[in-house]
Amino acid sequence: MTTQQFEPKWLDRDLVNIPIDRDNPTALPRQIQAHLERLIHERLLTPGMKLPATRELARQLGVNRGTVSLAYEELVAAGWARAHVGQGTFVAERAVSGGVRVASPAAPPVALNWSGLFSRNAQILGADDERSRAVTPIPSSGTVVSFAGGMPDSGLFPTDAFRRVLNQVIREEGASLLQYYPAGGYPPLRQYLSTYLLRFGLEARPEEILIVNGSQQGFDLIARTLIDPGDFVAIEQPTYPRAMQVFRSFGAQLLSVPWDGAGPRAEVFERLLERHTPKLFYCQPSAHNPTGLVVAPETGRRLLEAAARHQVPIVEDGFDGSLYYGDGPSLPLKAVDRGGVVIYIGTFSKILFPGLRLGWLVGPRPVLERLQAAKQLADLHTSALIQAAVHRFCERKLLDRHATRVATEYARRRALLLAALRRRMPSEVTWTEPRGGFSLLLTLPPDMDAGALLPQAVERGVAFTPGAPFFVDGGGERTLRLSFSSVAAGRIDEGVRRLAETIKSARTRLRGRERVERAAVPVV
Amino acid sequence: MTTQQFEPKWLDRDLVNIPIDRDNPTALPRQIQAHLERLIHERLLTPGMKLPATRELARQLGVNRGTVSLAYEELVAAGWARAHVGQGTFVAERAVSGGVRVASPAAPPVALNWSGLFSRNAQILGADDERSRAVTPIPSSGTVVSFAGGMPDSGLFPTDAFRRVLNQVIREEGASLLQYYPAGGYPPLRQYLSTYLLRFGLEARPEEILIVNGSQQGFDLIARTLIDPGDFVAIEQPTYPRAMQVFRSFGAQLLSVPWDGAGPRAEVFERLLERHTPKLFYCQPSAHNPTGLVVAPETGRRLLEAAARHQVPIVEDGFDGSLYYGDGPSLPLKAVDRGGVVIYIGTFSKILFPGLRLGWLVGPRPVLERLQAAKQLADLHTSALIQAAVHRFCERKLLDRHATRVATEYARRRALLLAALRRRMPSEVTWTEPRGGFSLLLTLPPDMDAGALLPQAVERGVAFTPGAPFFVDGGGERTLRLSFSSVAAGRIDEGVRRLAETIKSARTRLRGRERVERAAVPVV
Repeated sequence: MTTQQFEPKWLDRDLVNIPIDRDNPTALPRQIQAHLERLIHERLLTPGMKLPATRELARQLGVNRGTVSLAYEELVAAGWARAHVGQGTFVAERAVSGGVRVASPAAPPVALNWSGLFSRNAQILGADDERSRAVTPIPSSGTVVSFAGGMPDSGLFPTDAFRRVLNQVIREEGASLLQYYPAGGYPPLRQYLSTYLLRFGLEARPEEILIVNGSQQGFDLIARTLIDPGDFVAIEQPTYPRAMQVFRSFGAQLLSVPWDGAGPRAEVFERLLERHTPKLFYCQPSAHNPTGLVVAPETGRRLLEAAARHQVPIVEDGFDGSLYYGDGPSLPLKAVDRGGVVIYIGTFSKILFPGLRLGWLVGPRPVLERLQAAKQLADLHTSALIQAAVHRFCERKLLDRHATRVATEYARRRALLLAALRRRMPSEVTWTEPRGGFSLLLTLPPDMDAGALLPQAVERGVAFTPGAPFFVDGGGERTLRLSFSSVAAGRIDEGVRRLAETIKSARTRLRGRERVERAAVPVV
Repeated sequence: MTTQQFEPKWLDRDLVNIPIDRDNPTALPRQIQAHLERLIHERLLTPGMKLPATRELARQLGVNRGTVSLAYEELVAAGWARAHVGQGTFVAERAVSGGVRVASPAAPPVALNWSGLFSRNAQILGADDERSRAVTPIPSSGTVVSFAGGMPDSGLFPTDAFRRVLNQVIREEGASLLQYYPAGGYPPLRQYLSTYLLRFGLEARPEEILIVNGSQQGFDLIARTLIDPGDFVAIEQPTYPRAMQVFRSFGAQLLSVPWDGAGPRAEVFERLLERHTPKLFYCQPSAHNPTGLVVAPETGRRLLEAAARHQVPIVEDGFDGSLYYGDGPSLPLKAVDRGGVVIYIGTFSKILFPGLRLGWLVGPRPVLERLQAAKQLADLHTSALIQAAVHRFCERKLLDRHATRVATEYARRRALLLAALRRRMPSEVTWTEPRGGFSLLLTLPPDMDAGALLPQAVERGVAFTPGAPFFVDGGGERTLRLSFSSVAAGRIDEGVRRLAETIKSARTRLRGRERVERAAVPVV
């Protein structure tokens, strides 16, 4: 038998609250022992944890130290704990796996039946769960080249530079940044964004900018400010699944506007607005997820005009203009929005760190005030410390430097991916050529299903995101998303080779099955 | 004339996107000049900002450098900008305040009428706005002693110790903490909380704990998971105004259960449950805001039993058990919740830093899963960096050390406040004796209104929070909240002296008016 290893996990302050009942005929040591046994049995105290010092626990419970010692001795004798001379008493490793039995605690008198209590919002969300699970990314590993995901590459993070600016702002204004803060955001960051956005043609005063926890909170605040159950929401197709989910969870019915190469089809949007009165139109004009396409200026103008004519707000989910492929970044719709119909959602998640949860909304004052009230009620405000650190990072031009660096690298990975697809894919496979964003959409040969293909692909060492969850009305089974942002350049060609082989092999099987099916048709 | 001071605010990357129309008969320099004039006029470019370097801007716009130079010369001639040899061209200080006129941009073709677009949620929130403004705290200043607020004292913040743990966690695991993260939270923090809560008798496995952005987000997630428009919500009275607001904004009708010295009155709660089926009951048992009172064990037991019998969840807004006054902390309801009816809300805002926006929910698995889905849709996850830093802070026992220090200081301020009230207040004034939290509730003499008293108090150099917004059904006009947590010990007695004088003086005026009114009654 080897010496048992104890991780030094301590019960903080060495305390645990144990109810003592002096009127109970059960002796006090036994009461203490039974309570601790239950906590260990239920894994609330886990193997390796140090139990409170007898002196401390006795003081807390108002009993003699000997009473606690007796309880501990019993625990050790029963195998629940081990005493180490000079160190204390620890929860035993074998306690739970061993065959020791303990009386289970009294059954609760009434267990609440939660399932009958959920709101419609929660029920819709629950029903959407399956759909959302389908987009859970498969991470790259030693063996799998993963084009799933769609996040920036954490290998490119300017972590240490960010650590330094964090130190600076805590040193200079820590006490105020760690106190409650106004809901609108850290004023210097709003001021910075006002100027930053000008380079993309987007004009917003600081008071027209609201700081939020990433674009996801932007969707949520917009949805709760504009949507009542039963309302229509117009939405590009395909689109980002979590945006759909948010609007649906607030009870909206989604009406889709399909993309072509120039953006969501304006004539479909116009016809839709003649028949319905959606509460808003959601789209990603500057880097469409999943295709990487951008809205052509003429299409953008038509969408804006139709929206203004029909009094329908456009929710523009923006992508940082520093990350583009080709001639130049596309102009945000908000930059040419003369009717004041656009609410713009921006984020630092793609260009800097997703984990900061930092984004912003730009909108006309009347709606921005409502969004700010909703933000305050949702979580009071976004961490001012994080806001100040990002502001300092930007002000020192570190964001610009970082953006240049990652834009070059992502452009390289995009080019490698496109070249590999051209070289390796069978002729029936097609894909979009991304001009922004982190991904493209690939269409498989007829009758092939991306969801069914995924396990075969993973087996061959490559992963992707099936496209169906990006489609509002079903469909998209033949499509899949390939994200190039977090795949090392040196692995892209190999990943595409594996994917092409998977597709070819599935196609061969499919043709074989077709032949069998044809042969099975009875001659009549 | 003095030399003009320029703050070195630079246009980042020295760029601004200016639409150039080569088919427009207006000359290119004039187009650029007019665009910049408009940006300055609309204060999108603010005084002191440096304009883009001519070379850079020319390259960006695809025009000759001379074109940009001409535009800048015109701007300077018209007083919009100033050229500083060797430094560049800057937006002039007097640009907007001066009498210079600029043609305003073309009026938008259709301005969206937002007011007709807001959801019921937003409309309810808008209507509640006045009420919420009434609780905006008045900060302490050189002249005003402010008992308003209710936040921890930022003078006691362990800012530097926190800076150090932030550095450690970024160095050790920065890349993963800054990437997208699972919605449930940072596993070591959930594990820590599981053990931490045992000392207050609260048993929760890590997977029964969900990390959220402070308790405010907890309210929000619970409301959206359980409440449909028209539902009833039972709520203690008085209570925290923003909790009321959240439930109302989701369309709930509030039913109040008044506090007495032992907690929300159990017999009122029981009767209420016989007549209505509220979706939940909200209360703050361990440190009631505004009174500072705690729920007596017997009352807690009755509330729990009634809730379990009628299948009504209790939402327990907890206060850290390390901050208590008197014999010991009160046991959370969740610690004696055998029916599994309690969702517990915890936060680091009171015991550590409000500005981190870090809290947690504890609940039975079926509801916690739904809350986690709602959290994910609301903002994906809480910053893992902040979670890891707080975990490190706790693990190093820095939280325990800090809690001991602030508990002593807040206890001292509480004692000073109570002593000053006893010494200085007129006999008709009464107040609660807080056993937890940061405040007490004071009741003014009959016919006196705290809202009306506030301006007089501020004039005498003391501030408080009027009590009316804490009352669900109206009422509470005679009450006000005094928060002692962020008033320096040495100023408490002086603050109470000023308040007592304000009250006495108002009472004298009130009596004078009564006499006048009585005298005015016609003799019949």
